[in-house]
Amino acid sequence: MTTGVWLIGARGSVAVTSVLGALAVRAGLADSTGCVLETPGLHSDALPGIGELVFGGHDISSIPLDKKAAALAEAGIVPARLAGAVRDALSGVEQDVRPLPVRDTQAEVADAIGADLDRFRRRHQLDRVVVINVSSTEPAPRPHPAHTDLDALRAALHGPEPVLPPSALAAYAALRAGCPYVDFTPSTGARLPALDTLARKERLPYAGHDGKTGETLVKSVLAPMFALRNLKVRTWSGINLLGGGDGANLAEPAANAAKSASKQRVLAETLGYVPQGDTRIDFVEDLDDFKTAWDLISFEGFLGIRMRMEFTWHGCDSALAAPLVLDLARLTAAAHRAGRTGPLTELAFFFKDPLGEVPHGLAEQWQALRAAVDALGSSGEGR
Amino acid sequence: MTTGVWLIGARGSVAVTSVLGALAVRAGLADSTGCVLETPGLHSDALPGIGELVFGGHDISSIPLDKKAAALAEAGIVPARLAGAVRDALSGVEQDVRPLPVRDTQAEVADAIGADLDRFRRRHQLDRVVVINVSSTEPAPRPHPAHTDLDALRAALHGPEPVLPPSALAAYAALRAGCPYVDFTPSTGARLPALDTLARKERLPYAGHDGKTGETLVKSVLAPMFALRNLKVRTWSGINLLGGGDGANLAEPAANAAKSASKQRVLAETLGYVPQGDTRIDFVEDLDDFKTAWDLISFEGFLGIRMRMEFTWHGCDSALAAPLVLDLARLTAAAHRAGRTGPLTELAFFFKDPLGEVPHGLAEQWQALRAAVDALGSSGEGR
Amino acid sequence: MTTGVWLIGARGSVAVTSVLGALAVRAGLADSTGCVLETPGLHSDALPGIGELVFGGHDISSIPLDKKAAALAEAGIVPARLAGAVRDALSGVEQDVRPLPVRDTQAEVADAIGADLDRFRRRHQLDRVVVINVSSTEPAPRPHPAHTDLDALRAALHGPEPVLPPSALAAYAALRAGCPYVDFTPSTGARLPALDTLARKERLPYAGHDGKTGETLVKSVLAPMFALRNLKVRTWSGINLLGGGDGANLAEPAANAAKSASKQRVLAETLGYVPQGDTRIDFVEDLDDFKTAWDLISFEGFLGIRMRMEFTWHGCDSALAAPLVLDLARLTAAAHRAGRTGPLTELAFFFKDPLGEVPHGLAEQWQALRAAVDALGSSGEGR
Amino acid sequence: MTTGVWLIGARGSVAVTSVLGALAVRAGLADSTGCVLETPGLHSDALPGIGELVFGGHDISSIPLDKKAAALAEAGIVPARLAGAVRDALSGVEQDVRPLPVRDTQAEVADAIGADLDRFRRRHQLDRVVVINVSSTEPAPRPHPAHTDLDALRAALHGPEPVLPPSALAAYAALRAGCPYVDFTPSTGARLPALDTLARKERLPYAGHDGKTGETLVKSVLAPMFALRNLKVRTWSGINLLGGGDGANLAEPAANAAKSASKQRVLAETLGYVPQGDTRIDFVEDLDDFKTAWDLISFEGFLGIRMRMEFTWHGCDSALAAPLVLDLARLTAAAHRAGRTGPLTELAFFFKDPLGEVPHGLAEQWQALRAAVDALGSSGEGR
Repeated sequence: MTTGVWLIGARGSVAVTSVLGALAVRAGLADSTGCVLETPGLHSDALPGIGELVFGGHDISSIPLDKKAAALAEAGIVPARLAGAVRDALSGVEQDVRPLPVRDTQAEVADAIGADLDRFRRRHQLDRVVVINVSSTEPAPRPHPAHTDLDALRAALHGPEPVLPPSALAAYAALRAGCPYVDFTPSTGARLPALDTLARKERLPYAGHDGKTGETLVKSVLAPMFALRNLKVRTWSGINLLGGGDGANLAEPAANAAKSASKQRVLAETLGYVPQGDTRIDFVEDLDDFKTAWDLISFEGFLGIRMRMEFTWHGCDSALAAPLVLDLARLTAAAHRAGRTGPLTELAFFFKDPLGEVPHGLAEQWQALRAAVDALGSSGEGR
Repeated sequence: MTTGVWLIGARGSVAVTSVLGALAVRAGLADSTGCVLETPGLHSDALPGIGELVFGGHDISSIPLDKKAAALAEAGIVPARLAGAVRDALSGVEQDVRPLPVRDTQAEVADAIGADLDRFRRRHQLDRVVVINVSSTEPAPRPHPAHTDLDALRAALHGPEPVLPPSALAAYAALRAGCPYVDFTPSTGARLPALDTLARKERLPYAGHDGKTGETLVKSVLAPMFALRNLKVRTWSGINLLGGGDGANLAEPAANAAKSASKQRVLAETLGYVPQGDTRIDFVEDLDDFKTAWDLISFEGFLGIRMRMEFTWHGCDSALAAPLVLDLARLTAAAHRAGRTGPLTELAFFFKDPLGEVPHGLAEQWQALRAAVDALGSSGEGR
Repeated sequence: MTTGVWLIGARGSVAVTSVLGALAVRAGLADSTGCVLETPGLHSDALPGIGELVFGGHDISSIPLDKKAAALAEAGIVPARLAGAVRDALSGVEQDVRPLPVRDTQAEVADAIGADLDRFRRRHQLDRVVVINVSSTEPAPRPHPAHTDLDALRAALHGPEPVLPPSALAAYAALRAGCPYVDFTPSTGARLPALDTLARKERLPYAGHDGKTGETLVKSVLAPMFALRNLKVRTWSGINLLGGGDGANLAEPAANAAKSASKQRVLAETLGYVPQGDTRIDFVEDLDDFKTAWDLISFEGFLGIRMRMEFTWHGCDSALAAPLVLDLARLTAAAHRAGRTGPLTELAFFFKDPLGEVPHGLAEQWQALRAAVDALGSSGEGR
Repeated sequence: MTTGVWLIGARGSVAVTSVLGALAVRAGLADSTGCVLETPGLHSDALPGIGELVFGGHDISSIPLDKKAAALAEAGIVPARLAGAVRDALSGVEQDVRPLPVRDTQAEVADAIGADLDRFRRRHQLDRVVVINVSSTEPAPRPHPAHTDLDALRAALHGPEPVLPPSALAAYAALRAGCPYVDFTPSTGARLPALDTLARKERLPYAGHDGKTGETLVKSVLAPMFALRNLKVRTWSGINLLGGGDGANLAEPAANAAKSASKQRVLAETLGYVPQGDTRIDFVEDLDDFKTAWDLISFEGFLGIRMRMEFTWHGCDSALAAPLVLDLARLTAAAHRAGRTGPLTELAFFFKDPLGEVPHGLAEQWQALRAAVDALGSSGEGR
């Protein structure tokens, strides 16, 4: 099974860390720490290997991949040793990273994206291409009637005004080109009724939203802890300080609101009520990709006694995200091959804001993931 | 089903908070926050109600229960309002709290304990009495050949030298008197081959060890989080600052060592390897029952990038322990009624250092607990 | 020297804690922990004693002082024991707490405030009355030409539109009535050129702004530490979570902005440059008066190596503010008696946003305070 | 003024970071961040420049300096770029780093050390050589009568048994060779009456003990904050997690005890009483030179209300120590030139456990330092 991975935002930190890391694993220079599919209990012959993935993508930036890799090494996000060692292999990917098409109408942009995907597939004789959005977070779009009706959407895309936010246009183009689509960001992506219709019509799976890499990951184990122990959470307040491209973007109030809502959802779903407090996101350029999150949890125990917990998370966002991107590429490819269509709700383990009515506790999400991997495995008859 | 609860250490903070709380719940003055059996999914008709429990116990202290309750209220461990409201009911329990017997040989002490248990059972016409050790942590005992052989043990208890540490002597006496035994402390309790033999012979269940109320509770969800995400924990170091009676006791190096070992076990079991670092316990009288724990976790992600997490837990030990004591009394009583004998490994959810080869992740422990409660429920035909 | 203290916001948490505390100290029921003037090195015969202060004030609320005291005790802000013990004495203050006057023009309101101050002074035969603003934070006012010219201000106050924010109107009324004025909040208070003119004309001192009780206090010692060690602070980001009346008020964006700016000023002044990062203020009702602040400091050492420091502050705002209110009343009274006029810049030790060009490091501010107290002492010839 | 710096422990992390950093500053490749003497207010013509210092030293290790520098770069303690750039200059220092002499008696060792110092002075035509101990912490030595009497000491050194711990023997040898001595560690160094006699006899200054680089630095500003605000510190408990050579050494109970005592002294001296709590030091190899310290401070405010503060310090020990080593070399050289003899108590700013009866608050220590630098400056007539 030859699998292509087409990254929207292919020159960003997450994308370049993913590609560089996959090349390093293929070359035997790095192990697969952080890749969930490499843990015991999640093995399946139906999954393509990390080293078998072929990468390409779109970006509006034109910074060369090796330049970006050097900058990541300078910032301590990837080891300088590895950035040097895979430099040539990385340059080999360069030819498959193309500028995001610009056209007069969104219909024409979608056609151009599709053409790029076709070319990539043909050039590498790929069985399938998984499109993954790792670009910066968009503001939540204004509702449009065409979002709920595929025919209306097709017509509206020919008009002069944009109908879809970029992430959803990429999803539309991907699905039309026969490619499964994954949204690793909180952006709209395939999360519109018209696109769900399209995915089912094309018999394609899709997944999302918003990779769970830091504070929300911790929440997804701590909130169930309080719930299982029947402790009443009164306040859960947090702040995320982050730099990097995504940080600057999230400083925009609209994008910030989308992300914050996505981050608090786990509490309501897991606890069964909404505690006081908010999740803040502040842009601090100096911190670059090393995000610091602090949360205060005030809770009540037996007879109403008040207690507190705090945690601080100092994580490197790209280092946490990249192995999950590789996991998602492999899982979505295998799901496509196995004939799955529509939302892959069993991948909730990976996302802050998962698709469907699914559990938000990490342990239950892992059970669902394992069941899904087991199911894949039984259908696998070699690659 | 009338159920007695006999507390070893009945005048201590945990015991008095448990009794006071149960009385307050019975009187409708407090809800059951912190009681795990009151969460959805863990209901069973086979369990006695909190308000139906009848309390008694042993202690070497002679401070009256209402005095202790007033001290707890002054220290903010129970609400002053509740301590006042159940004052009379608490004094009613006073007659069933007796001094820990002192005799020439441990065999005689065991007989005296058994006699106290019989008297308690008869006076209140109880179907069964669950004995729960909530006294201070003992040092780990020196090994003795009689620990592994019931007959040898029986003989040795008649000698002039103590053979069993106090917690194990209480377990021996309880089992001989037909009472299930629970150890909420890290002490030896029923955890000796000779006592296991006795429990099975008498067809009695037992449970333990060391109620999981704070730092280890958090570890039992965070360690699986790192494992499931394939992140490599390099260092896990922590310190526990605590006052109160147990704090002073744990300042003794031998008791401290027993407790610290119990607290790190979850890491090895959950991660599959032992990270660097230790768990320290320091006695700070000023903090009283409000324990503060701080942990530093240094971990490694994709491509070896280093990251960190810290947490601080400010918990009130007695307020966290008391509802679990009530849960354990109810569960052990129901298990006894259902004919369970030997170690109740399905109660690992409650313990730092659970009996048997069991999972140490909190989510899996909860699954096991739910299955056990479900099994109880099906055998229940009214109380 | 008989000294009156007139509190604007006399029924609020800070005011009631101040009055209750002074009564408890007078009665010998509490010591003066938290009162700076009771530390070695700051004694002076020229200062009125805590027990000699006579209290009155204005408020828009009508909740009785003893009810408020009971609520503070319930919330753990003052000990229940003390609230009970001084209940009668507190009710004795009740007659001197009056509703904030409402009139058609601000000139008439100022006259009514002045009449209340006169009545208070006469009733208790006070040598002087210090007016202290401890009401909720106002939004920053819009500039008005009359703010810079006393004659224009006098004329404008007769118009139908408000010219001054409430804190400044109170300052105007106080100064006209011959009373020194202290602003314990970040509101405008006497900080307008027209009011400075009035103070100098009436030969009265004034002080402010914004009592330094928590996070900023810590900043005022940590920032100099980094500066003295020549360590380069790159980021200083913080969040304040607080409930209580002031918390709700600060949730208003305009008031929040005023407060946040006041909180960051210490960094620029002490470091000599402005690091990245912001100070957030979030209202979390559940936390009540127990404010939690968390700060992250990222700094650079020798050869550019990056390091970090974090701190969390769990403070009870009223318990931290009240002794400073008593200190300020005593200092301002003694300064008035000693003939000081205009801004009391030597009181910077007490304020987040002190008047004048003064040092922002706590140690230097304390030197200035000690010099001022020494100067007072030498002029004191008994009280 | 040509100044030599002779480092005991010259191949350790602190020494190599100091030398490498001084070479980088001389070459214009790095600025002097972290060097206290480069802050405004501490300039003096009497001080030798960083770039003018000439380095040599003793060590029991034989790892080449450039190898050590590469290891420091790999561990992120110095920038790889700088380690590369000064590689040749660093190798030039190699010839002046000699193995610590081994002889039959301590008298012979002292002679050999003195000969090495003479050779270094002559080779580089140095005006003076400052000896600085940056080797690992020793256990506290057993008392010996010769420690208090110089003649007795001279005699005892000829015996077969060691009389002095290594740090004190180095101090003895340095002082005999006419070199001022600085102890940057908590070891004994010159802190013996017999050595004080020697220093005064030889008209030499000495300084120490134990560079204040992390947790104690923070304590030295926070403890005065609580004192100045009249807040009562009830508990101050802390833990230091550290790896690296010094960490391993401090894991030894005896060395640990010496260091811990040194770290708590600031509290008693600054607060005027000893709060509850201890300072722990734990060795965690994984953390290497990046030390993490966590402190909990529980304090009491007005009317006895309890509050808390916590801080975490993530510092790179060598990066914090090295610029202070350069400062101390420069200051001690200038003090020697200015004719100062005996303990340099005015350098308390740099030390956890300063010599003499001196203030422990950082701000007052800085005032003393500034006065000392000013005094130096006035005596300087060019270099």
